[in-house]
Amino acid sequence: MATYTLRDFPKLDQMLSMVKRLGLTRICMKDIWLPMDSSPEKIAETLAAVKKAGLEIYACGPVGMNNEAEVHRAFEYAKNLGVGVLVAVPKFDVLPVVNENVKKYDIRIAIHNHGPEDKQYPTPNEVYEKIKDLDPRVGFCIDVGHTIRAGVEPSEMILKYADRLYDVHLKDESEATKKGRTVEAGRGVIDLIRVVRALNKIDYQYVAGFEFEKDPKDPMPGVAEAIGYIRGLQAAL
Amino acid sequence: MATYTLRDFPKLDQMLSMVKRLGLTRICMKDIWLPMDSSPEKIAETLAAVKKAGLEIYACGPVGMNNEAEVHRAFEYAKNLGVGVLVAVPKFDVLPVVNENVKKYDIRIAIHNHGPEDKQYPTPNEVYEKIKDLDPRVGFCIDVGHTIRAGVEPSEMILKYADRLYDVHLKDESEATKKGRTVEAGRGVIDLIRVVRALNKIDYQYVAGFEFEKDPKDPMPGVAEAIGYIRGLQAAL
Repeated sequence: MATYTLRDFPKLDQMLSMVKRLGLTRICMKDIWLPMDSSPEKIAETLAAVKKAGLEIYACGPVGMNNEAEVHRAFEYAKNLGVGVLVAVPKFDVLPVVNENVKKYDIRIAIHNHGPEDKQYPTPNEVYEKIKDLDPRVGFCIDVGHTIRAGVEPSEMILKYADRLYDVHLKDESEATKKGRTVEAGRGVIDLIRVVRALNKIDYQYVAGFEFEKDPKDPMPGVAEAIGYIRGLQAAL
Repeated sequence: MATYTLRDFPKLDQMLSMVKRLGLTRICMKDIWLPMDSSPEKIAETLAAVKKAGLEIYACGPVGMNNEAEVHRAFEYAKNLGVGVLVAVPKFDVLPVVNENVKKYDIRIAIHNHGPEDKQYPTPNEVYEKIKDLDPRVGFCIDVGHTIRAGVEPSEMILKYADRLYDVHLKDESEATKKGRTVEAGRGVIDLIRVVRALNKIDYQYVAGFEFEKDPKDPMPGVAEAIGYIRGLQAAL
């Protein structure tokens, strides 16, 4: 789960129990529950609480990276969390530093596209233009919702950038335009059958996270429906 | 939706808004929101509220029928509600009266099986034994959960009794035994792919209702997940 979904529940225990209730086991930790400047002790304490809840942190982010210091801090944080993937939105000019850190830490970075409003990375295509000559561990978190909001078919992006796909945000959208908003999966315009088939076709080995921006004060019914829908597709396809 | 799921929310408006949020349009009205002895005025008022909410009452029940008077009352109620299907649990000895009323009112009755604890109708097989010589409008509401709890494969029942299948309660169960309890669809032991395939194969023309007995005080996440899962199966199969 992309824990941004549960952003209005800042108590760690509450967030963890919500994830458990949804039947999920792996989380992408947003810094709401563990600030980027947390001490190693605080990080260890949080990791212990997550483990005690029977869950696993597979990634962290999305993390903004606006300057070199933020890049270094994020990689140090990811290292202390012990995650293999760092979901991030780096400014273009820090990409060389990102590239160095990917090599230094051996942590993959998954650059997250944010749709038509995103001046840097509206779709995975703009991500690719910037990363194609970098270390292959610099890759993608394809957000299928923001991708379709930019008028691009998400399943095609999954197939096209399979080699460097390190995270996926699964959701559905009301419209394939800038006005699109997250809706319960299966009720929107994304062809999620194609998305699931694409993930199967590339034999995707990383985690695909559920993200649900709608109803932040009461997200459980909507995200539960989305999870059920995708699981139903996975079971049947 | 089988509104028994929302039994702890006795205010009509609240129940209706929950059904709407789940993206459903048709409800099987349990008498919690409209007692069996309601006046025609009260029934009309309730029908108006349901219509205003953009929903439709496709059936009522489950209704117990322990004596002749209860049979007559239930058919009168169903007639006033304007439903085509009455989900019911009639005592064996009132079945002749049920049969007469089915003819008189031209309303189908869907007898609901309740699993191993049910002395009359643990599975659809016991229903069939009692109704096979009655009017064909006396038929089944196959509860897939209670069926598997009695050790019987629900998809086989759907195929076997397709001709008289007038309602279905969709759910999942933790175990295929008496100890089985409802769980989120996809997390339990029912082969829901087989169930959906069976419904497709018989070209089922009536309504299949979601029912969720778990978490009565907070049913939305679980029932939403169940609905999502079944819809995912339906979309993919």
